[in-house]
Amino acid sequence: MGLYCFGIDVGGTTVKCGLFLTDGTLVEKWEIPTRIENNGSEILPDVAQTIKDKIQERGLTKDNIDGVGIGIPGPVNDKGEVPMAVNLHWGFKAVASELSFLTGLPAKAGNDANIAALGEAWKGAAEGAKNVVLVTLGTGVGGGIIVDGKIVSGHHGAGGEVGHANVNHSEIEACNCGNHGCLEQYASATGIVRVANQILEESQEDSSLRHCRNLSAKAVLDAYKAGDKLAVHTMEKVGDVLGGALAVFSCVVDPETIVVGGGVSKAGQPLIDCITKFYKKYAFPSCKNTPIVCASLGNDAGIYGAARMVIKD
Amino acid sequence: MGLYCFGIDVGGTTVKCGLFLTDGTLVEKWEIPTRIENNGSEILPDVAQTIKDKIQERGLTKDNIDGVGIGIPGPVNDKGEVPMAVNLHWGFKAVASELSFLTGLPAKAGNDANIAALGEAWKGAAEGAKNVVLVTLGTGVGGGIIVDGKIVSGHHGAGGEVGHANVNHSEIEACNCGNHGCLEQYASATGIVRVANQILEESQEDSSLRHCRNLSAKAVLDAYKAGDKLAVHTMEKVGDVLGGALAVFSCVVDPETIVVGGGVSKAGQPLIDCITKFYKKYAFPSCKNTPIVCASLGNDAGIYGAARMVIKD
Repeated sequence: MGLYCFGIDVGGTTVKCGLFLTDGTLVEKWEIPTRIENNGSEILPDVAQTIKDKIQERGLTKDNIDGVGIGIPGPVNDKGEVPMAVNLHWGFKAVASELSFLTGLPAKAGNDANIAALGEAWKGAAEGAKNVVLVTLGTGVGGGIIVDGKIVSGHHGAGGEVGHANVNHSEIEACNCGNHGCLEQYASATGIVRVANQILEESQEDSSLRHCRNLSAKAVLDAYKAGDKLAVHTMEKVGDVLGGALAVFSCVVDPETIVVGGGVSKAGQPLIDCITKFYKKYAFPSCKNTPIVCASLGNDAGIYGAARMVIKD
Repeated sequence: MGLYCFGIDVGGTTVKCGLFLTDGTLVEKWEIPTRIENNGSEILPDVAQTIKDKIQERGLTKDNIDGVGIGIPGPVNDKGEVPMAVNLHWGFKAVASELSFLTGLPAKAGNDANIAALGEAWKGAAEGAKNVVLVTLGTGVGGGIIVDGKIVSGHHGAGGEVGHANVNHSEIEACNCGNHGCLEQYASATGIVRVANQILEESQEDSSLRHCRNLSAKAVLDAYKAGDKLAVHTMEKVGDVLGGALAVFSCVVDPETIVVGGGVSKAGQPLIDCITKFYKKYAFPSCKNTPIVCASLGNDAGIYGAARMVIKD
């Protein structure tokens, strides 16, 4: 086991980079821009260069480095290959082997939501748990499943794609994935606004939400905390759908801890309490007390999880 | 790696026993009665005795035996402990360590549905697949999840309890588990009859099902295959619920193969086709072509999976 490792999290505009001790101490973090020009062909060379620069700057030796883990916004199979990553303008790319070739270090690649789950299970809100379900509520709904301390990437790299769990067979509007009734259509920031607008339309009652110029998930959650009736109605609907979905995930993998991350989770404990109420209603009896907690690593979850992937046990 | 191992599957009335070569060849199988008197205190000693007898009868040596795997109808944690198994009249029992003590062999214990999944993934309908979802449609609905070739037992031993995935938040009738709207209430043999009776009540149309004295799932499926309109209506409802649930499980663990077992699966390909139609409708795009197949090991799935647990890789 080396002393150091790198955790890299590639996003659409910036690449987050972390140098870690293998005990999980974050030594330094920094960012470089994501250059998506030329079909993103410069992204991995840029990552390799910043790693080499950091090794030189710190006077490290390769013998002392367990490797480089990298998270990608797209499906990643067990070999560290990406069939395509739309936001990076990539078609097929053998990410792990290419990064290993470019750096001369062992490399592993994972999906960005999956590595965030691994990060939270390693040093975040679910620290020490071997089995974790993470759901991230952002523009969309992502997720990651950790079983026995390892990412469940799945046969098609779709492990943890829980935002596309179908929660309503009668939904008329389409999800971005083409299906109808995905969790993401209700529990993402966009989904919460969509549900709120439906409830505002169906009701005659006044609500502080009617006075928002651009209704946002944050506005709905703030009004929910303030006790606005239609905001409460909205979040009860969202909580019912999300808590119910988490209960289903629980009877599949029965996690020790369920972690809720993403921008929407900034609403904190009132959101968690709302989800937990419905989770308990629908969960299999022996899973009813599984704790649901807010993610704690924020935007650093990805670099932590990426680093964790390459640490030898 | 030894040459032999034992696979044991404890049911409420009989204990199925198998002697295997570690390459998966079933050398011999036999049964002993399950003696549930005295709080089932004789069950493990009986199992140990039949194993010792078989070792002597065949002139085997312990050095040549990898161990004994045993399946139990109840939750089993990672240590091979059972908090309770109602059908065996057991409270807490440290099954693996007790069986190891009694036989002098390494022992592992697993839940009966989970070991059936492992059996099907090893030598059955999903042979060779590393990631498998098994759902068994019997009196109830059970299941097992295999990830990376291993059983997902879960934090409370509730991994694979997919029969209690909530599929209908508006259900009024209660499931045996106390919740309302579990998959089991629609897709078990009992559930199929329940759905059929509801549809018969709501409709004025004639149906061959109206002439059954004791309506059974088999009668519904036979009528479905014969094109009876209300039986088709029933199975479309069941397929919608079950296919939809399998699609949700797929976006959690993304299996290579989905296996359908249990008594109801004897209906064969027409049932599989019905489930697959709805699965494809609701599944995440990259999982839409995941094959759904009938279990192939029948009642032997448990002894295969139990044996597989103790084979050293």
